[in-house]
Amino acid sequence: MQSLQAKASEWSGVKQDDAFAIDDTNLFQKLGLQTFINLSTNFYTRVYDDEEEWFRSIFANSKKEDAIQNQYEFFVQRMGGPPLYSQRRGHPALIARHRPFPVTHRAAERWLHHMQQALDGSTDIDADSKVRMMNFFRHTAFFLVAGDELKSQNQQPQCKHGTSNQTPSKNS
Amino acid sequence: MQSLQAKASEWSGVKQDDAFAIDDTNLFQKLGLQTFINLSTNFYTRVYDDEEEWFRSIFANSKKEDAIQNQYEFFVQRMGGPPLYSQRRGHPALIARHRPFPVTHRAAERWLHHMQQALDGSTDIDADSKVRMMNFFRHTAFFLVAGDELKSQNQQPQCKHGTSNQTPSKNS
Repeated sequence: MQSLQAKASEWSGVKQDDAFAIDDTNLFQKLGLQTFINLSTNFYTRVYDDEEEWFRSIFANSKKEDAIQNQYEFFVQRMGGPPLYSQRRGHPALIARHRPFPVTHRAAERWLHHMQQALDGSTDIDADSKVRMMNFFRHTAFFLVAGDELKSQNQQPQCKHGTSNQTPSKNS
Repeated sequence: MQSLQAKASEWSGVKQDDAFAIDDTNLFQKLGLQTFINLSTNFYTRVYDDEEEWFRSIFANSKKEDAIQNQYEFFVQRMGGPPLYSQRRGHPALIARHRPFPVTHRAAERWLHHMQQALDGSTDIDADSKVRMMNFFRHTAFFLVAGDELKSQNQQPQCKHGTSNQTPSKNS
C-alpha cells in the first residue's frame, strides 16, 4: 500500500523535502506570534464567509474563534515556536482530529484557495516564507485527504466479518 | 464527548502539564542522538523477545529495525532535535499510524512496562529526564488507546445507515 506521505506528495505535487522546508529556518522567530494569529484570523474569516455553502458547512459545528486558535497554535508549534497546541490539547494527531470532517480532494483545494488568498493578503510575511508555508500547507492538505480515505477502507469489512482487514504495517 | 487528551489524562493518571513537561527543557540537546537510538533499540529488543505472545504478535508484521528507527526519529523530533521523522515520513499523525494495531489498555500497559525497563536500564539518562519521558510516554500511550476507540465508534453506524454518526467537533 502506498504510504500516506507518498499519496500526499503525488496528489499535492509537492515533494516531501519541499513540504518540510519549513524546518530549514525558524519561521516563528522570523515572523512572530501576531503574524500567525493574523493569518489564521484572515483565513477563517474567508472560510466562514465562503460563498460555496458545501465548504462553509464543513465548519458549521465549530466556533470560529476556536478554529482560529487551534490553527495558529498548531502552526506556531510546528514552525519553531512554543508548544502552545500540545500544552492545551495534547498531540496534534492531525488525521484523527480531522476524522469528523469530509476531507476530499475538492475540500483540500478549497481550503488551499482560501489559505493562498490569506497569505497573499499578508504584508508581514516575506515571499520566501510564503512559498515554504504554502508547500507545507499543500502537502499537509493532501496528507489529510489520504488520511480521510483510511476511514472508508476500514469500515466495510467490519460489517461483513466483524474483524478488521487491516494488515499491521509500519508503512501506512 | 470527552476529548482525546482528557481521556489520556484520566486513564494514564498523568496530567496534561506533566505529560508535556518534556518541552520545558531540550532533552535532545541534553541527551544526544545516540541515547535515543540506544533507548529504542533496548525497548524493541525487549518487545520482540516478549514472553507474552499476544503482545509480541502485534509487531509481527513490522521489521524490528524499522520500528526502532521510526521510534527514535519521532522521539528526537518531538524532544527538541532535528525533524528526522517528518523529513522521512511526513507528519507523525500518531493515531492514524497506529490504526492497524489493537491499542488496548492492556497493550498500553505492556508497552509501558517494557519502556520503563528500557529507561531503568539506561545509564545515559538522568533521573529528572526519565521522569519527564515516562510521563510523556504514559500519557501518549493512553492518548493512543483513546484514538483506537474512534475506530469502533465510527464503524457500527456505517453498517446500518451507510452514513457516519460523527458530529463534527473541534473538541474530539
